[in-house]
Amino acid sequence: MRPLIFITNDDGISAKGIKSLIDVAVEFGDVLIIAPDKPQSGMGHAITINHPLRLDSSRLFEGLTAFTCTGTPVDCVKLGIYEVMHRKPDLIVSGFNHGENTSTNVLYSGTMSAVVEGAMENIPSIGFSLCDFDADADFSEAQEIARKVIRKSLDSSFPSHVCFNVNIPKLKNEKIKGIKICRQAHAFWEDRFDKRMDQFNKPYYWLTGDFTNADAGEDTDLFALENGYASIVPTQFDMTAYKVIDEIKNWEI
Amino acid sequence: MRPLIFITNDDGISAKGIKSLIDVAVEFGDVLIIAPDKPQSGMGHAITINHPLRLDSSRLFEGLTAFTCTGTPVDCVKLGIYEVMHRKPDLIVSGFNHGENTSTNVLYSGTMSAVVEGAMENIPSIGFSLCDFDADADFSEAQEIARKVIRKSLDSSFPSHVCFNVNIPKLKNEKIKGIKICRQAHAFWEDRFDKRMDQFNKPYYWLTGDFTNADAGEDTDLFALENGYASIVPTQFDMTAYKVIDEIKNWEI
Repeated sequence: MRPLIFITNDDGISAKGIKSLIDVAVEFGDVLIIAPDKPQSGMGHAITINHPLRLDSSRLFEGLTAFTCTGTPVDCVKLGIYEVMHRKPDLIVSGFNHGENTSTNVLYSGTMSAVVEGAMENIPSIGFSLCDFDADADFSEAQEIARKVIRKSLDSSFPSHVCFNVNIPKLKNEKIKGIKICRQAHAFWEDRFDKRMDQFNKPYYWLTGDFTNADAGEDTDLFALENGYASIVPTQFDMTAYKVIDEIKNWEI
Repeated sequence: MRPLIFITNDDGISAKGIKSLIDVAVEFGDVLIIAPDKPQSGMGHAITINHPLRLDSSRLFEGLTAFTCTGTPVDCVKLGIYEVMHRKPDLIVSGFNHGENTSTNVLYSGTMSAVVEGAMENIPSIGFSLCDFDADADFSEAQEIARKVIRKSLDSSFPSHVCFNVNIPKLKNEKIKGIKICRQAHAFWEDRFDKRMDQFNKPYYWLTGDFTNADAGEDTDLFALENGYASIVPTQFDMTAYKVIDEIKNWEI
């Protein structure tokens, strides 16, 4: 029996990235697509609890079952499992994201939160991002990487309660050198707000900033990408800072 | 000089919880309040990038500087640091949340994401939640716990790039037994969708479900709370699953 592969993203159902990922996934199994009806970048692990959710059939992908959802990528995963499939798929893939989801961006990324949700459900789950924000980005190299990672993931014993964060470099004149297993780099946004005045002379703000790598390690996702490799960070949802538990116990609050 | 304490929440500026936390914070320092203008529960680490943000002065708290923000709790923290204070505060507190943020709820919780953002900025940051969803909940015991945790946090060397997830049990006829330093329990939502039909006979869905503890450990936040203790989980933003890195390297993708 062909595996059942669930597909979502955060750029919305009409993005080029999800179509490019679907084209790879259908080589490996039967697919179900539920994706946001509008861009949901930066939605992180948000779920929709103060508004009802809508789910509408989509005819975008000929011969494939697809729905749009009014909610977030995590909503898409929950609706897929508990309302549409009434079972767990064999694999969840999310992406291709238009733009990198390296390092601490895993926290802001809807693409990655969808697969972190998959890990919570103990479903093998992989988020794919191409380091190119262009709406017309060329995903052919990314597809090659995805093909390898999906094949190996289906053939192997996928680690329980873990998901993969796969980032693929944007390379022009050279080939991707390979795939490195990495840790999340210690890197941060130095935020800025672009303050503008509206037609009533009242201020509004656009979030912007620079992403800065504070990590000299050669085992990070950012190092791999800078050196022409795709990166995989195995990612977990246990956020306990085990290293400081004993220290805080000594505080005797 | 009195410390500068930044206060936010995810239930919105008019919630009883944030007022109860402000009343504790002013005992320890000067405060700046920026809170969402509407409930933002379940927003996780979402940031607002597809809409502009608004920031409006609030007169809700006499003698204190407060703003409402149209965005998420993480937006509030970013606006506070980079647009309003133009410096890092000495402490960030978020809450009191109306309802628990134990275990994997740390991922969904706007209350906790605000302080995870604080940890990324390397600011001592503490999220406080009372295990009582009632809008009129009694926060007096929670205030006692917050007082102890804030005092100790300001007097101690707060661990770098870590935040605290503090949950306080709802107890009626007994006192809280103390405060336990814990790990995040391995517990999950078994989701359900409440499917209803609108006035045009089209379906819509409300997310609901049951939270189930799959963790028999006695060192978890859920165990502490069930046994009458408040829990503190030191929480980090590095989500790398270090334990499986070598295993995946052996896959030779």
